[in-house]
Amino acid sequence: MNSKKIAGEKAAEYIKDGMVIGLGTGSTSYYMIEKVGALVKAGMKLKAVATSKESEEHALRLHIPTFDINEVPTIDLAIDGVDEIDNQFNAIKGGGGALFREKIVASHAKEVIWIMDDGKLVKEIGNFPLPIEILPYGYRYVLEQLEKASYLPRIRKKDKEFFLTDNGNYIVDLQLKAPLNTKDIMEHVMNITGVLEVGLFLNMCDRIVVGRKDHSIKVIENKYKR
Amino acid sequence: MNSKKIAGEKAAEYIKDGMVIGLGTGSTSYYMIEKVGALVKAGMKLKAVATSKESEEHALRLHIPTFDINEVPTIDLAIDGVDEIDNQFNAIKGGGGALFREKIVASHAKEVIWIMDDGKLVKEIGNFPLPIEILPYGYRYVLEQLEKASYLPRIRKKDKEFFLTDNGNYIVDLQLKAPLNTKDIMEHVMNITGVLEVGLFLNMCDRIVVGRKDHSIKVIENKYKR
Repeated sequence: MNSKKIAGEKAAEYIKDGMVIGLGTGSTSYYMIEKVGALVKAGMKLKAVATSKESEEHALRLHIPTFDINEVPTIDLAIDGVDEIDNQFNAIKGGGGALFREKIVASHAKEVIWIMDDGKLVKEIGNFPLPIEILPYGYRYVLEQLEKASYLPRIRKKDKEFFLTDNGNYIVDLQLKAPLNTKDIMEHVMNITGVLEVGLFLNMCDRIVVGRKDHSIKVIENKYKR
Repeated sequence: MNSKKIAGEKAAEYIKDGMVIGLGTGSTSYYMIEKVGALVKAGMKLKAVATSKESEEHALRLHIPTFDINEVPTIDLAIDGVDEIDNQFNAIKGGGGALFREKIVASHAKEVIWIMDDGKLVKEIGNFPLPIEILPYGYRYVLEQLEKASYLPRIRKKDKEFFLTDNGNYIVDLQLKAPLNTKDIMEHVMNITGVLEVGLFLNMCDRIVVGRKDHSIKVIENKYKR
């Protein structure tokens, strides 16, 4: 069993009957959603909210009752992957392009679990390109501003076209290096008109579940969540 | 002649042959666009970028050569209306719902002129509801956060449906009172995940052109533009 699957399935153990679950996006979340499907099939009463159309379609195929985020009064537990995370629980997310919806769900879920293989655990985040979501209108000016600030922006492409998020926006990957000055980046980048959201998730999870190649699992609780 | 028309036509005097013009949105900008149409008809070579689909359609009807903002290398002069402005050139904009595109254009234009009737000049801004643009995904959580912070948010409606911006988003009007703590609002509101942009335009114009009921015109230069 691969380490992503180990982490995804372990996290599903925290799901309890009656919960509203936030379903993450990406290759590790895939296994978690499979497990949620199995729980529903076994009779557990769950509601789900997806962080992407991809995860929503996956959930629907498994007959997981799936709702628009605005239709549920609360999200009890969100489970999602990360691209890089340090031991202060600061993470880069958005490699899959779903950072905006992932951040809305993580911001409002009562409990957040991040799942990963142990390659995602790093001493200092920043070597993974930092994704930000920007609007199409005026994107060239936004790129210019990011370039001037030496953030080395690269607009993400898919099949030679600009990659489009579920919100109809573009993703720009900033080619930075660890360690990041996260406070500066948040302040500066978020204040650029045209930037919707930055893929920095600072101390937003309650727990991480790490699957390892030797098939062992490490669960680390975050006692200092903001 | 009404005072909006006086202001709109006066501002058009700053337009020079060969310029790329940013066309504002709203009832005062309407008259400015009419005048730009007359200039083009008279033989002036101009290019235009519109801050809304409404203004773009208006420009096209007048045969003004109109471009996508990402197609022009620069914007020489932007002319737009305001909803409220103080003597420090801090303004509330977005009554027409185009605040995001207006802000992109104002941020990148080499020169910005704001046009208005004299009712828009106030000692302290804040009594006009402050518009913010938010994404549909998770909007209920954004409203909850705004309510908790006592911003008295009202989601804007049109014909009993939620008003949709040209970007496919919602507008929320915050029912505040003058004077505003603009720094606090910008920091706090812009950091809420789901908020795209706030309709505060702080010291972003080079000049205002005010039309008065007695048909006189007042032009005030801003020597301290950031």
